[in-house]
Amino acid sequence: MAGVDFARKFSYATRTMRPSGVGELLKNSNVPGVTSLAAGAPDPDLFPVKEFKKYTNKAFKDFGPGILQYGPPEGFEPLRQALPEFLVKDICEPITKPENIIITAGSQEGLLILAQVFLSRGCKVAVDKPTYIGAKEAFDMFSPEYIEIESDEHGADPKSLRKAFKDHPDIRFYYALPNFQNPTGKTMPLDRRIEMAQIAGEYGQLIVEDDPYGRLRLEGNHIRPIQSFASENTIGLFTFSKMLAPGIRVGGMTLPNQMEPNAKKRIMNKAAEIKGRGTLTTAPFNQAVITEFIENNVFKNHIPRIIEENRLRRNAMAEIIEEFFPKVLQFTSPNGGMFLWGELKDEYKHLAPKLNMHNIMDELVEQHKVDFTDGRFFYAYPKKTKPSMRLNFARWPVKKMEPAMKIIGEVLTQKLS
Amino acid sequence: MAGVDFARKFSYATRTMRPSGVGELLKNSNVPGVTSLAAGAPDPDLFPVKEFKKYTNKAFKDFGPGILQYGPPEGFEPLRQALPEFLVKDICEPITKPENIIITAGSQEGLLILAQVFLSRGCKVAVDKPTYIGAKEAFDMFSPEYIEIESDEHGADPKSLRKAFKDHPDIRFYYALPNFQNPTGKTMPLDRRIEMAQIAGEYGQLIVEDDPYGRLRLEGNHIRPIQSFASENTIGLFTFSKMLAPGIRVGGMTLPNQMEPNAKKRIMNKAAEIKGRGTLTTAPFNQAVITEFIENNVFKNHIPRIIEENRLRRNAMAEIIEEFFPKVLQFTSPNGGMFLWGELKDEYKHLAPKLNMHNIMDELVEQHKVDFTDGRFFYAYPKKTKPSMRLNFARWPVKKMEPAMKIIGEVLTQKLS
Repeated sequence: MAGVDFARKFSYATRTMRPSGVGELLKNSNVPGVTSLAAGAPDPDLFPVKEFKKYTNKAFKDFGPGILQYGPPEGFEPLRQALPEFLVKDICEPITKPENIIITAGSQEGLLILAQVFLSRGCKVAVDKPTYIGAKEAFDMFSPEYIEIESDEHGADPKSLRKAFKDHPDIRFYYALPNFQNPTGKTMPLDRRIEMAQIAGEYGQLIVEDDPYGRLRLEGNHIRPIQSFASENTIGLFTFSKMLAPGIRVGGMTLPNQMEPNAKKRIMNKAAEIKGRGTLTTAPFNQAVITEFIENNVFKNHIPRIIEENRLRRNAMAEIIEEFFPKVLQFTSPNGGMFLWGELKDEYKHLAPKLNMHNIMDELVEQHKVDFTDGRFFYAYPKKTKPSMRLNFARWPVKKMEPAMKIIGEVLTQKLS
Repeated sequence: MAGVDFARKFSYATRTMRPSGVGELLKNSNVPGVTSLAAGAPDPDLFPVKEFKKYTNKAFKDFGPGILQYGPPEGFEPLRQALPEFLVKDICEPITKPENIIITAGSQEGLLILAQVFLSRGCKVAVDKPTYIGAKEAFDMFSPEYIEIESDEHGADPKSLRKAFKDHPDIRFYYALPNFQNPTGKTMPLDRRIEMAQIAGEYGQLIVEDDPYGRLRLEGNHIRPIQSFASENTIGLFTFSKMLAPGIRVGGMTLPNQMEPNAKKRIMNKAAEIKGRGTLTTAPFNQAVITEFIENNVFKNHIPRIIEENRLRRNAMAEIIEEFFPKVLQFTSPNGGMFLWGELKDEYKHLAPKLNMHNIMDELVEQHKVDFTDGRFFYAYPKKTKPSMRLNFARWPVKKMEPAMKIIGEVLTQKLS
């Protein structure tokens, strides 16, 4: 009997794919005893468990046993019907229609599907510098070339986007995160969204606008999405992971009503096909429960409750940073989402060798059972970036997060001394 | 403002991918008023709704709100712990361990992940002739070359497998369905499984053994899986879609304990990474409910109930075929699963032009609201196949299925006249 020569069995992707950063990032977040500020996980103690029980029962009552059957790849029809209004409630008029929505297993699957629709090996895709690691990991499956968009305190910089489109007309799309960007927490103001939309229109470019945290705004008013301005060429992504619970795995993608009908039809068909080939359908059971949540106005009570708690946590985290973290780091002050982002100020760049964030991360976990994320995970090309870190302020109640944050501050201070 | 030139935006895959046959196959199965015997869908009236309600509540009680949180890509630990014994209960000793299991969104996602691990464009993969369309559609994403394995009344033919491995040592794996094969319903006897395992070992080849229907055996004893004989080189796939409900979207893949440790580790790592990049994790909520089903022995009562009903339905369907279908078609008599398969007998091949199954399918839907599946969907290369059809005997109660079957028989008879 011959053994299997596995080296000759694996695909090109398997042989060349670099290990996943998400795995590395999440590895300590479920380890008992570790206070992890690393993963983008919400606090399970804020999940509406009582409502989940109630609306699971109600979903069977309202929709029957068919919610346990296969469903169409595009998604559960009552959920698709409810979404166009729900997604932009109190912000603007509906941008999409039920027939232009595909429900996916979280927005992650939406990202992978869009990557499959638009990217082949070596294609160009524009991303923020830094950008969401999960998007990068989905795109990486197709070995694209990344064109990085610079940012200032208001998020991605229109001048940089314009230059990217001008220099690289073959960019397939720009992946945008205008609300409480991951990892930086920055929010793009209204006028800049309009400008980004204009630039994409001018260069005939596509935007993929991801909005996982939009509803988790702690101050100020909601700002209209880029999709509402660039309605011919912006694909939206949404998820229930942050405003409800990630473990339900429901999100999706939306095409705007104004998109050119043939393109819209082709994207819908291809996306639905790819969805079908990958997971057949998002669990209709889960989609039905979410539909009940929307139809019974559960979010109206639930979201303010998360926001109120998250505001306390963000404020507490910012205060600890102010008091205990070295001043050589500059932190963002997001008015929503889940993250604070800190990076070494330019004038202290000579200190960079002392702040090997990856080693500090490992040391913190081993010695103090505390975890954050090395900011380098979020760069398409991390080699020359300055030391940076992402902290999830939403994961733990203040009294649990406070000691963890103080330890991080102490260790950073000690590294710099 | 320039419009988007979408033709220049799409990926190679999008531009070249043929439309999904699954979409075509499923399109009438949820249309109200259509009695569809086409899709591989179970009967929702047999879903254990009461138990779903009960064990959703119990899952929250036993596992806490964390079942609504992100989980590791490999799956929910209590489910992984329960599976090795559950999967082979009353058949053989456990073949896998919790750490060698990855939970996926139905076995479809497992198929896609395995395709990604092993297939690049143009790679060879051996499949039954005919084989499961969903597997083919997942593999198609990587544009492989199919090597087709012939079969007789006992399923795939070892001589044909041996020839395939001999002629094509670069085959990446053989995709096997030994229990109640989809679409034919054929079951491979014990001695043949042992032989298939020996052949794979002899040629240093991998087998992917899919077993969606194994538990739905209507007569006789369970037969040990190929994986229990070729334990160095067989990857298993399982799903809860047929023995419980597809709408929960839980399945998975198993590596056998005996697999070479480095290969096992590498496959596990790659599969978990690909899983993470695609859907992050299978909904822990759903996995927790399934865990409750296993731990509380729900299957022990539930599966016999499905089997008893399915036996009535299979018998009724076989009787109608005997009485009302043209004798030029040869049908299988499966001892389990969900399907009967019929094809034109060789001695009547001159009648093939009269039996354009695709047109007959369309006509039946339009004029009689009845649907079956053209067998050509299940062939890697359908061009030269004889007229064939797959009928799902498990989807409808006898009194609903009977008139639909009689109409199909009448229309077939009429086409031949």
